[in-house]
Amino acid sequence: MTNSGFGNYYNYHFYMSIARIGSRTLLGLAPEERATCIYTLADLLLSKEKEILEANEKDLAEATKGGLSKPLLSRLSLTSPKLRSLTTGLRQIAENSHNNVNRVLRRTRLAPGLDLTQVTVPIGVLLVIFESRPDCLPQVAALAISSANGLLLKGGSEAAHSNRALMDLVRQALEEVGANNAISLVSTREEISDLLSLDGHIDLVIPRGSTELVRSIQDQSHHIPVMGHAEGICHVYVDNDADLAKALKIIRDSKCDYPAACNAMETLLLHEDLVKSGAAFFTDVCTMLKREGVTLYSGPKLAEQLTFGPPRAKSLKTEYSGLECTIEVVSGLEQAVNHIHTYGSGHTDVIVTQNEQKASYFQNQVDSACVFVNASTRFADGYRFGLGAEVGISTSRIHARGPMGVEGLLTTKWVLKGDGHAAADFAEGGSMHFTHESLPIN
Amino acid sequence: MTNSGFGNYYNYHFYMSIARIGSRTLLGLAPEERATCIYTLADLLLSKEKEILEANEKDLAEATKGGLSKPLLSRLSLTSPKLRSLTTGLRQIAENSHNNVNRVLRRTRLAPGLDLTQVTVPIGVLLVIFESRPDCLPQVAALAISSANGLLLKGGSEAAHSNRALMDLVRQALEEVGANNAISLVSTREEISDLLSLDGHIDLVIPRGSTELVRSIQDQSHHIPVMGHAEGICHVYVDNDADLAKALKIIRDSKCDYPAACNAMETLLLHEDLVKSGAAFFTDVCTMLKREGVTLYSGPKLAEQLTFGPPRAKSLKTEYSGLECTIEVVSGLEQAVNHIHTYGSGHTDVIVTQNEQKASYFQNQVDSACVFVNASTRFADGYRFGLGAEVGISTSRIHARGPMGVEGLLTTKWVLKGDGHAAADFAEGGSMHFTHESLPIN
Repeated sequence: MTNSGFGNYYNYHFYMSIARIGSRTLLGLAPEERATCIYTLADLLLSKEKEILEANEKDLAEATKGGLSKPLLSRLSLTSPKLRSLTTGLRQIAENSHNNVNRVLRRTRLAPGLDLTQVTVPIGVLLVIFESRPDCLPQVAALAISSANGLLLKGGSEAAHSNRALMDLVRQALEEVGANNAISLVSTREEISDLLSLDGHIDLVIPRGSTELVRSIQDQSHHIPVMGHAEGICHVYVDNDADLAKALKIIRDSKCDYPAACNAMETLLLHEDLVKSGAAFFTDVCTMLKREGVTLYSGPKLAEQLTFGPPRAKSLKTEYSGLECTIEVVSGLEQAVNHIHTYGSGHTDVIVTQNEQKASYFQNQVDSACVFVNASTRFADGYRFGLGAEVGISTSRIHARGPMGVEGLLTTKWVLKGDGHAAADFAEGGSMHFTHESLPIN
Repeated sequence: MTNSGFGNYYNYHFYMSIARIGSRTLLGLAPEERATCIYTLADLLLSKEKEILEANEKDLAEATKGGLSKPLLSRLSLTSPKLRSLTTGLRQIAENSHNNVNRVLRRTRLAPGLDLTQVTVPIGVLLVIFESRPDCLPQVAALAISSANGLLLKGGSEAAHSNRALMDLVRQALEEVGANNAISLVSTREEISDLLSLDGHIDLVIPRGSTELVRSIQDQSHHIPVMGHAEGICHVYVDNDADLAKALKIIRDSKCDYPAACNAMETLLLHEDLVKSGAAFFTDVCTMLKREGVTLYSGPKLAEQLTFGPPRAKSLKTEYSGLECTIEVVSGLEQAVNHIHTYGSGHTDVIVTQNEQKASYFQNQVDSACVFVNASTRFADGYRFGLGAEVGISTSRIHARGPMGVEGLLTTKWVLKGDGHAAADFAEGGSMHFTHESLPIN
């Protein structure tokens, strides 16, 4: 325990053991009750909009006074449309709640009278650490309820008013089904390192926020697994066989739709044919992006090629999280793929091309969580993918990868029913043999 | 780099980059070619049995001289039946190889012209660290080939001869399909800590061996995820509604079939009715276990109850890995579940009962990877579950849980195909709407 003393230590244990108990309460409910709880929360987000936005105003005012950066302010801000789209996502989760926990994934008759079933179960107790974005709170709460996980939420101090207002609604929704304990908002004063030292109480940590936050949590957590995107350095590669009007549209959307998001484009890769003298496309792209207020930087190869052009990018691994963008030129598909493998973060990468063979090569070769053809990077999102609200976008290669909905919060249990079966019966020369017959799931 | 210098550092990078390249070669093969490669390996295990057993003899002789403990000797030993059962497992993996990589898990039409597909892809490069058991090597190699993962194998020095002989066969099998690079046996001299420091090259570490090995790897690996069972403290609970003949059979098999395995029973929990004076069962169990050579220990409650009985167990959290066993008495189902949650390791726990309600309560409440009714703990095994040879048994709550076959070595990629789609088109008042229509997988 660093700088906290017994009082806090006691608090942590308290938070955690009630989360474990609360998760068992959630697990004991009927799926319809878990769904009702989420519908109630969705309704409250609309009916209490005034209170939520007032609380958010306080946070915004303090943050503006404190000089919070623009991307962070934009993440901190709640609006009517944000709340409405939140509500839609929550209802989508509620609708799918009947089938999350105790869902049969596989049934196998190992031998006569010996039946194996693999079923989904909650991971246990989750700790979600998030910065700025208070809309995270009801999203994650709904996913935890739907999956019967206990949840500890640790928000940033910059969103303290908004988070408290939203947590009040979560508590009201949980009270209706008697599962108040399942979700707690940990005080902003608690030390994250102390929380992370208590393995055995927390089964998974999910940091949502800046690369620095995620890195810091990964470094501090030695025994509890951490699930979270480390970075979103997303690329759009425009091929020489691209439909250039579509390319312009995809570039604008990928960069400008919501530049603070991790699924925004950071680097634009252009086939050399589109940059060589006489090609209008390069000018068109730069004009469009400048009109949108985007500051441009050149990759080293582009800088070499241009007499006058955007200033050199400091690094090809930059996640700007704002209206800034690196442009680099590549000799073709293979160089584009290599660039993405060298400088990308394995999040979301796009090819714009009308050539199906090239599209298919790109999709097979690029080793990222999301690989798109002729579509904006911004579609890399749990809600857009139809997974309901998302817990985050994972660039991990184990467990969940890409937009992580409720399935990322589940694990499985193997249930075997026999009638006195012993493994020795199945030894060579034994009386029994494995048949491993697949049984229907329903 | 600890104590290694540039030479080794260079070697590590070499191993790892060829593993990455080799995994891409495997991924580029047709599924039938990957299967052929595994069938070849299975055939070689039979045709080269003499060479394998000779190499193993050398290891066994050295180990016996060196005073290796009996459970470790038993894990180190290869026999004809072990090789035959290995071969069966390998053929099972080969048979299922057509459908591992690039398998479509989900297809969703997000909107007209915008189709999302989730497909399986290999995790990347795996490092499997194993002790003693050389039969691990071809098993893990087959799983890696089937899933198109690159693989670095680090075996214990006690099995060096056996591992080299088996690796020769793996190399012969890989050569047939031109994927020699995909699997390497790392020299026994290399430092594990050095291997673990090279994140970015290795995507997943799987230690197979003693609790100490697994703990040590988990402590040393700060950035590469570690997948491995920490301990197998498995329980059999005999209920007062049990069929006692079946109970005796399950207890004997769970403890004695292969006591060195992680899925062997370590603690036997008996309902108090079965222990009270006049009940024959307790004596029957003790007599049977003693006849099998099992040394018995009493849990504290049992010790209190008996005037003369087995000596006190040092801890209720002991994984004996040999012919030793703790017996404890419980007042009933609920106390059994609490005991398992308090002292168990979440691996495999069994209830023996004829009462279906109690069975169902146990299966829902016990939070372990494997929960069995009226069957031996020894069924917790990838081969017996029909998953082919297993990579290990995971007690982790994320990614794979329980016996981990080839699916534990896969992750997924999200592929989206559009026609110039932008997220802004879907904003409120925009021209498009998400339909999220589930499409058939085939």
